[in-house]
Amino acid sequence: MKKLNVGMIGYGFMGRTHSNAFRKVTNFFDVPLQPVLKTICARNEDRAKAFAAKWGYEGIETDWRKVVESPDIDVIDIASPNDTHREIAIAAAKAGKMVMCEKPLGRNAAESEEMVDAVEKAGVANTVWYNYRRVPAVTMAKQLIDEGRLGRIFHYRAKFLQDWTISTELPQGGEGLWRLDVNVAGSGVTGDLLAHCIDTAMWLNGGIEEVSAVTETFIKERKHNLSGKVEPVGIDDASLFLARFNNGSLATFEATRYARGHKALYTLEINGEHASIFWDLHDLHRLQYFDHKDEGKLRGWRSLHITDGDHPYMKNWWVPGLQIGYEHTFIHQVADFLQAAAGGKGVAPTFRDGLATDHVTDAVLESARTRAWTKVK
Amino acid sequence: MKKLNVGMIGYGFMGRTHSNAFRKVTNFFDVPLQPVLKTICARNEDRAKAFAAKWGYEGIETDWRKVVESPDIDVIDIASPNDTHREIAIAAAKAGKMVMCEKPLGRNAAESEEMVDAVEKAGVANTVWYNYRRVPAVTMAKQLIDEGRLGRIFHYRAKFLQDWTISTELPQGGEGLWRLDVNVAGSGVTGDLLAHCIDTAMWLNGGIEEVSAVTETFIKERKHNLSGKVEPVGIDDASLFLARFNNGSLATFEATRYARGHKALYTLEINGEHASIFWDLHDLHRLQYFDHKDEGKLRGWRSLHITDGDHPYMKNWWVPGLQIGYEHTFIHQVADFLQAAAGGKGVAPTFRDGLATDHVTDAVLESARTRAWTKVK
Amino acid sequence: MKKLNVGMIGYGFMGRTHSNAFRKVTNFFDVPLQPVLKTICARNEDRAKAFAAKWGYEGIETDWRKVVESPDIDVIDIASPNDTHREIAIAAAKAGKMVMCEKPLGRNAAESEEMVDAVEKAGVANTVWYNYRRVPAVTMAKQLIDEGRLGRIFHYRAKFLQDWTISTELPQGGEGLWRLDVNVAGSGVTGDLLAHCIDTAMWLNGGIEEVSAVTETFIKERKHNLSGKVEPVGIDDASLFLARFNNGSLATFEATRYARGHKALYTLEINGEHASIFWDLHDLHRLQYFDHKDEGKLRGWRSLHITDGDHPYMKNWWVPGLQIGYEHTFIHQVADFLQAAAGGKGVAPTFRDGLATDHVTDAVLESARTRAWTKVK
Amino acid sequence: MKKLNVGMIGYGFMGRTHSNAFRKVTNFFDVPLQPVLKTICARNEDRAKAFAAKWGYEGIETDWRKVVESPDIDVIDIASPNDTHREIAIAAAKAGKMVMCEKPLGRNAAESEEMVDAVEKAGVANTVWYNYRRVPAVTMAKQLIDEGRLGRIFHYRAKFLQDWTISTELPQGGEGLWRLDVNVAGSGVTGDLLAHCIDTAMWLNGGIEEVSAVTETFIKERKHNLSGKVEPVGIDDASLFLARFNNGSLATFEATRYARGHKALYTLEINGEHASIFWDLHDLHRLQYFDHKDEGKLRGWRSLHITDGDHPYMKNWWVPGLQIGYEHTFIHQVADFLQAAAGGKGVAPTFRDGLATDHVTDAVLESARTRAWTKVK
Repeated sequence: MKKLNVGMIGYGFMGRTHSNAFRKVTNFFDVPLQPVLKTICARNEDRAKAFAAKWGYEGIETDWRKVVESPDIDVIDIASPNDTHREIAIAAAKAGKMVMCEKPLGRNAAESEEMVDAVEKAGVANTVWYNYRRVPAVTMAKQLIDEGRLGRIFHYRAKFLQDWTISTELPQGGEGLWRLDVNVAGSGVTGDLLAHCIDTAMWLNGGIEEVSAVTETFIKERKHNLSGKVEPVGIDDASLFLARFNNGSLATFEATRYARGHKALYTLEINGEHASIFWDLHDLHRLQYFDHKDEGKLRGWRSLHITDGDHPYMKNWWVPGLQIGYEHTFIHQVADFLQAAAGGKGVAPTFRDGLATDHVTDAVLESARTRAWTKVK
Repeated sequence: MKKLNVGMIGYGFMGRTHSNAFRKVTNFFDVPLQPVLKTICARNEDRAKAFAAKWGYEGIETDWRKVVESPDIDVIDIASPNDTHREIAIAAAKAGKMVMCEKPLGRNAAESEEMVDAVEKAGVANTVWYNYRRVPAVTMAKQLIDEGRLGRIFHYRAKFLQDWTISTELPQGGEGLWRLDVNVAGSGVTGDLLAHCIDTAMWLNGGIEEVSAVTETFIKERKHNLSGKVEPVGIDDASLFLARFNNGSLATFEATRYARGHKALYTLEINGEHASIFWDLHDLHRLQYFDHKDEGKLRGWRSLHITDGDHPYMKNWWVPGLQIGYEHTFIHQVADFLQAAAGGKGVAPTFRDGLATDHVTDAVLESARTRAWTKVK
Repeated sequence: MKKLNVGMIGYGFMGRTHSNAFRKVTNFFDVPLQPVLKTICARNEDRAKAFAAKWGYEGIETDWRKVVESPDIDVIDIASPNDTHREIAIAAAKAGKMVMCEKPLGRNAAESEEMVDAVEKAGVANTVWYNYRRVPAVTMAKQLIDEGRLGRIFHYRAKFLQDWTISTELPQGGEGLWRLDVNVAGSGVTGDLLAHCIDTAMWLNGGIEEVSAVTETFIKERKHNLSGKVEPVGIDDASLFLARFNNGSLATFEATRYARGHKALYTLEINGEHASIFWDLHDLHRLQYFDHKDEGKLRGWRSLHITDGDHPYMKNWWVPGLQIGYEHTFIHQVADFLQAAAGGKGVAPTFRDGLATDHVTDAVLESARTRAWTKVK
Repeated sequence: MKKLNVGMIGYGFMGRTHSNAFRKVTNFFDVPLQPVLKTICARNEDRAKAFAAKWGYEGIETDWRKVVESPDIDVIDIASPNDTHREIAIAAAKAGKMVMCEKPLGRNAAESEEMVDAVEKAGVANTVWYNYRRVPAVTMAKQLIDEGRLGRIFHYRAKFLQDWTISTELPQGGEGLWRLDVNVAGSGVTGDLLAHCIDTAMWLNGGIEEVSAVTETFIKERKHNLSGKVEPVGIDDASLFLARFNNGSLATFEATRYARGHKALYTLEINGEHASIFWDLHDLHRLQYFDHKDEGKLRGWRSLHITDGDHPYMKNWWVPGLQIGYEHTFIHQVADFLQAAAGGKGVAPTFRDGLATDHVTDAVLESARTRAWTKVK
């Protein structure tokens, strides 16, 4: 089989999910390219070596530019903090590499726009790791909508609730905590959690026209791990907005890290004229489905256990009733990417899709600042 | 409207549920007879008076024979402890009264047989208060089975789990605790909880052919409230059995008061060739229904919220989505009884149905004693 | 026992829930006043008679003014459409009667303000039937919050989802459909459903400072039952808003009659620093509770089955594990009202509390109109 | 790191789960041995080659004896049908190899006894793949029991429900369907599904003293894939039993492939004096836990999401709230096995534990045959 040499930039949480996906995909999917874990890049050499040993990378680098320029590399996978995405992606595109980028694409739409320009001008396959599209139950939701089962859409609602930053003792910045440092992350939950909700929402329900948002930073100062000093917190801890989609439906969106009791509760619901769908990341194999066309007295929410061979991606795994988990969504994205990449193409969500999400998050942050309904660009 | 004068024997928990049912039924159901709370009978005069005041009974008695013999009374409702059922019911039948009797009918099938003989010989309308048949979701289950939606039945399983007698400090016998006194109750959970499961099961799935059972008394001695002394406990604390129904399906049944965490968890499930049904008393308005005839990828358990106008009994209550509770099952039984009684008939479960359940509980207790599969008479 | 003579205005859905509450309360609660169903008032004499027969009212009237002026009446209970509340309540107060009023208090805050003035000037006991405060699980939530278990509050979210008006064939106005007629109802789901959410929210979480709202009328024209002609629809079909409470917490609120699959799904959640609470009207006996102070590895949402004797109101009903339903919330309100009324007082939510809710719904509608954040008066 | 060379016998469903486990373990766990996928053995050479290519095995064999005898192999992993377990395991032990064997150990206890003798005489590390012990939530249940949180145990109940063999059209025997061929499988659901329930039960609750069982073959004849003829079905389609554990607790067990609507619903519950636990394979990350020592009014079933760093195995995976799936249980078993094997030891469940389960399944089948309570050897 033809090889696809991977240059991975970043070795953190996302470095692991991506590496695992490349390493497992051919055990489960028939794909036209065999990924090879060629190079892992980290600024710290010891960490790069340890990661390479753990995952079987053939080599290491400490300067991402060397990876980007290496003739041995086919695809650059960006799994480093948000503030590095733009520069690496543009360089990779210019070097003619395919590019896979962790979400959000840029720290804001301006950055993302440059990135889109770069990959489109270079004509390289690209994708953004909004992995939740490829939870089988979510992909199934998309199928049901595309089949027209819901009819006219009236409502959409999504939330992503966590509780891991409630303590005032938690510092900001540095290893493992860069998501609390606004300079690195670009924003707080808006880019981290809401962006996931928005990507799925626009995939399922089309574009968003305008938003009215509010954000809050509940804990105003935290010790900064880099300076060692107590500094103002620049990120948003919570971000909520009302939206009107282009199709006329109304929505509520909410993300927060201050919802005690929830670890990663991403839920979405869509209500149509004929049918409704509900999904929940904490119960990721279930799709709740209500169909008004069912016989009157037998109408009820169906709890679909999306583990059958005729459900998306599932014939590649085990047998009905047996679950897969979080990491498999990345494997699905790699499987789809390899299929497309063999023909020189990327897969959705592409950089252009990622930019669309960033336009919404920009509008959310602007609306929160101006306290006005804000059109999405 | 024609009146139906009620003579109530017993003022405890069941005296309340029955009185409430008689008092409310005409506010919600169009029935041909208007129940009148004529006489409440309790051995203790003060209690009888207090109960009469609370519920609006016109008069009281302390000797049930006077109520049975009174020409003012049309129906005798037996809500007193199990050891009184036989004598009162037979006397009432002989006096030509309709008879409604709390479950179980007798303390054993021998007692119940005499009671059936009495009401059938007298030709008086009769019923046993196995109220769970008239939870709307359970009645709905019966409808679905009668419509043939399940096909050949393979499995039935029921359990009734409580945890209120785990403490060794709890005494047995006397006011409020006669259910722990084997002489009064006849048996422990077998007659108290399993009897409910069996009544519903035979209604939904037909007769039971044979059983293999085990019972246990976890706490062997308790203070007896009447003697004031520590005495052996004669009741079964837990009762479990395997069964084969006449239709060839296999079943597990279990009742216990030692299942920590469960207050009144009566659940039942029936699995057929084409469809399955699950119900749970702690979520009494839901009927879980799985239909294999649904489109393949959309098969799932449907959570039917049995609150619509086309669901059993529900058009008489509020609006879709709004729940009724435990007490309403008794009102439904009264409503059905009044309808039938106007034509001189009783309603199922009749005394004969109650006897059928007692034949099963007798077989369960015998099987537990003999450690052998036992045919149900 | 001292009597409390009730004059009931209105015989619809709410006339039934209130009548049932007055009729049952003394069977279950020890209260200092015995309600007497004295007079039912309906414009249509036949309907008044039928209702009186069904519920046991001693007399009927077709002109509410006669009821208000009657020396036989102690309390006026207003269960008629929204456009009648103001006039009746003010007249009742002037006549020195206690007043109980269905929600919302007025069609808008201006009407409600006059009503508050009237009852406060007259010094008569009063209450508004926001019945969901007295679902035992909701009352329990209030207790937990008052005990300080949640700490600083970060988030509140509530929604009330229905799906009964999706059909374009459904007419507006007239018998049973006045909720779709803006002149009678004052607004659509804002006053009907959101008002419930707001009343509970302010009880649990204090006052609301400002809102940003959007409303929509999905079906723009419907046949009007009174004119017989197709007319523009004036009500809001859906109403969503973001809010900031006085305590700094952020909220989303949503109500709609276009959420396919939901009959009366009122849910609320509140997230505090230490603990969180979730409740759902479709599962009304459950209170979901998460307490961060639990031992680390054993932290989880607890599903509290609010049916025990030490849970609010429940010792008056059956035994642990056995459920009550929707109608019981009204009985609880009557029980509390009778207790207070014996001392000349009303109970919360009083007319003043009802006005506070109307200030919020007014702000919501204004914000939707102006597309701006709007302060609550 | 020291290598552990794996010789895998079998390339079916279990061949995949095991290969995946060996391949992934070092990416996530720090273990003292590095597994090497050395040889895959299948009778059909093409299939062996295809499997080797898919999973990265270095070589193939078509005769398991060659693998067993090869000096290159450290551990023999038996993932072939049940009728091959005995012979391969004994030969492997004699050859001094470590042995890992798919469950059930033998087709009956007699076979298993020989296998235990062989590995114990040879002193080789061994384990049986009862993988469900290592679902993090199940391992957590064991911890809670070992910590004494449940107190005296009263009840245990387990069931494993499937519905994949209901069609009369399904043949028996041959590729993928050997589980329906009694000669190959040894028994039907008793050895396939109940064995899982029994292994977990004895781990959590100790030995089983005696059982009363019933089995049924609902479809009596099926086409046999090997003979091409319709032949009697020898396996049990359903198997149910009552049990008494050595600790005095009572139990119901049930397994069936005729429970319409259930794909792989393995549930277990254990009720103790102080606390209860419930778990369900369809929701494998949740552990339901009820603790009577909680404050009275706040007692409820806690839904523990077993995804935190202080939960078993979970610190090796992702972050709190993100799920793993079915396949990970095998990875956990390999991780534990590698740890032990470095010191020359196997891990529970060992072959001796597997034999204990077979003694129970033998007793179940005997009890079903003799219709008598049967002691477990």
